[in-house]
Amino acid sequence: MNMYEIIEAKASGRELTSEQIRFTVKGFTDAEIPDYQMSAWLMAVLWRGMSARETSDLTRAMTESGEVVDLSGINGIVSDKHSTGGVGDKTSMALVPLVAACGGKVAKMSGRGLGHTGGTIDKLESIPGFKVELPIDQFIAQVNRIGCAIIGASKNVAPADKKMYALRDVTATVGSIPLMASSIMAKKLASGSDAIVLDVKCGSGAFMKSVDQARILAKAMMSIGIANGKKMAAFITNMDVPLGTAIGNGLEVVEVIETLKGQGPADLTHECLEIGSYLLSLSGFGTPENCYIQAEAALSDGRALKKFAEMIEAQGGDSSVIEDYSILLGNPASIEVRALRDGYITKMDTEKIGMCSVSLGAGRSKITDPLDYHAGITILHKTGDQVKTGDTLAILYAANPDLLEPATDNYLKTLTFGDKMVASEKLVFDILR
Amino acid sequence: MNMYEIIEAKASGRELTSEQIRFTVKGFTDAEIPDYQMSAWLMAVLWRGMSARETSDLTRAMTESGEVVDLSGINGIVSDKHSTGGVGDKTSMALVPLVAACGGKVAKMSGRGLGHTGGTIDKLESIPGFKVELPIDQFIAQVNRIGCAIIGASKNVAPADKKMYALRDVTATVGSIPLMASSIMAKKLASGSDAIVLDVKCGSGAFMKSVDQARILAKAMMSIGIANGKKMAAFITNMDVPLGTAIGNGLEVVEVIETLKGQGPADLTHECLEIGSYLLSLSGFGTPENCYIQAEAALSDGRALKKFAEMIEAQGGDSSVIEDYSILLGNPASIEVRALRDGYITKMDTEKIGMCSVSLGAGRSKITDPLDYHAGITILHKTGDQVKTGDTLAILYAANPDLLEPATDNYLKTLTFGDKMVASEKLVFDILR
Repeated sequence: MNMYEIIEAKASGRELTSEQIRFTVKGFTDAEIPDYQMSAWLMAVLWRGMSARETSDLTRAMTESGEVVDLSGINGIVSDKHSTGGVGDKTSMALVPLVAACGGKVAKMSGRGLGHTGGTIDKLESIPGFKVELPIDQFIAQVNRIGCAIIGASKNVAPADKKMYALRDVTATVGSIPLMASSIMAKKLASGSDAIVLDVKCGSGAFMKSVDQARILAKAMMSIGIANGKKMAAFITNMDVPLGTAIGNGLEVVEVIETLKGQGPADLTHECLEIGSYLLSLSGFGTPENCYIQAEAALSDGRALKKFAEMIEAQGGDSSVIEDYSILLGNPASIEVRALRDGYITKMDTEKIGMCSVSLGAGRSKITDPLDYHAGITILHKTGDQVKTGDTLAILYAANPDLLEPATDNYLKTLTFGDKMVASEKLVFDILR
Repeated sequence: MNMYEIIEAKASGRELTSEQIRFTVKGFTDAEIPDYQMSAWLMAVLWRGMSARETSDLTRAMTESGEVVDLSGINGIVSDKHSTGGVGDKTSMALVPLVAACGGKVAKMSGRGLGHTGGTIDKLESIPGFKVELPIDQFIAQVNRIGCAIIGASKNVAPADKKMYALRDVTATVGSIPLMASSIMAKKLASGSDAIVLDVKCGSGAFMKSVDQARILAKAMMSIGIANGKKMAAFITNMDVPLGTAIGNGLEVVEVIETLKGQGPADLTHECLEIGSYLLSLSGFGTPENCYIQAEAALSDGRALKKFAEMIEAQGGDSSVIEDYSILLGNPASIEVRALRDGYITKMDTEKIGMCSVSLGAGRSKITDPLDYHAGITILHKTGDQVKTGDTLAILYAANPDLLEPATDNYLKTLTFGDKMVASEKLVFDILR
């Protein structure tokens, strides 16, 4: 077996054997297969695609390239949720304590933000003292004790994927559905949970621009999960508008707390309840409809909020932030973005709104950029809203006041105005189970 | 402009601009674009193909990456011929003096053999003293004086192509028509002639397996040549059987001399006259039909043979080989391959016959392998021939007698026998002009 033959087979449109796929992943991870052969192979995969069997084999080979977390020490069905990434997507932070408050077990490993999307781990670190790195036995013990924990993914999870992703990123092969699906699922399989709910974002702020594309990706990931014995469900949700009204680390934690207090934005609250109901249902708590009612109760009676406080404390954080937002919000410079005309907001370029937030210091252009936890955007009007000249559309925050003026111009450019009313955006396009 | 965007554009099926193609070729040659991006791009080109304009731009960029020979010092139209490579293809050696004998000017740069095909330069070096490296002014002076010269291609011709070919060779991207066409034509454009006749081989001993594929490649190359102001014609010829009866360096020179004496195999003689007539016609000597008659005359009255002797002497070689074959043939060990059954030869695996000749020492598996000038094969029966058990099918020659037995088995395996008569193979499938 050699890599030339494997590239040739894929470029000719033939299905690869399990052995050929293992050989490829192992050889590349061990630096026996050079980058230039791997990138030709990746392009051939973008061209020819992969069968469900090939994609599942690829995922397993990437999972097995690194550490696989053993969560068998957790009593009950362990659930996990994965979002493909969006702007203002703070769902995980609210969802995890919500599900735990209903009796579910959520052992979640999350990532940091890069580019226009933020990361759950970064957001949690805006809470003073919150530790995102726990030894695995402590992580398991916490989930057994309080029902949930959120930590950063181990550095040794799926090293094959890290190496492949770095190469895909510079060779224009990121867009392949089997490569995307296996990249995400390799990490999910390595993180050891039994039930996984996927949130595949689509629209101007997401990698998948259409619902059809998003559905194809979701199906590919579900089929990998099912082939590997996982309980699976997938949401296709809207990322043509930011989720909720807050973008930025501290700002988003505040919005999560408000949501857990029952005072959050309707879209975020609804999404947490919907996805939460599926996590609970896959964990054996009844039908999704029944679980939705359980989740609503945990939200309205304060159990979910209490669980969030418990989780913060368990991970060394200061839970007084729940009553006092001043530490989370800090005291940044700010500016109001005002409407220059009367009319309706007909479209928001959500990716550019994410990049605007990055420019304020809330995110990273490259992995080594420092974060300003208090920087970000509060959105006052979204697609479908009618506004008048001079109305405040958003408030921008940054430690460095010089960043505000240019960001104001950029923010205005992300919005399209029209004279006719448009419907506000739909939240959930589809649920696959 | 950056390479990521160029890969992405090609992978998405968009036509690249001239600037993008120049950027790619120059960046790769200067090692500013890494191999892993170039190989992804090459695979995207295999996938999406290239327009005639892109292919012509690519060729020109590769030509301009190195030295371009200036043949304007040669009086008259300078013609050149290129074969895509076959087994027993010694046409150039016979053709060049034949065309010069009729008044044409042929300034030919040739290559060495690798794999199952031989190289003109290697074959000429089996003539004692023959120099294949001449300073360019001496090359031009010789063509002006006697009408022809054959030398090795300059090491600095189209370095971009050398580097790209090395990468294509290990990434299964050799099979792309625009990449093949531009690779060949970049070197032809760099070698400075005005008229080019292409001989595109097809069949079991050639890279192109079908006439249709060969025609597509021929058309792509012709269109590059025409776009660059060259007079072009192309032959599609049969490589399902070896050309002539001799394979091996010294053996092939002997066959060329026999052909120039009017005693050569019919297929080789006919191919030399046909291609020669087009070289002459493109050089302004009349219609191909009329030029065929001129070439026949130069062959039958001994002028072509005399011209070959002149060329050998002009390049420092010993022209006595024309009357005395003993130096060319040497005194190798030999063995007769005999038929194990009665019947008709219905098929010859010509590539494997080429590899059999390599195994005897007549060719190279890798670029550094030494050559045995006296090794090779004399074929006594070809496709269409009826044979009886015990008939000699071929004679194998090698300096090392231990190589003969295994080569005998291998040679027999290249032949398919049947009980029914089959037509002998057609020589020329098509002529494009």
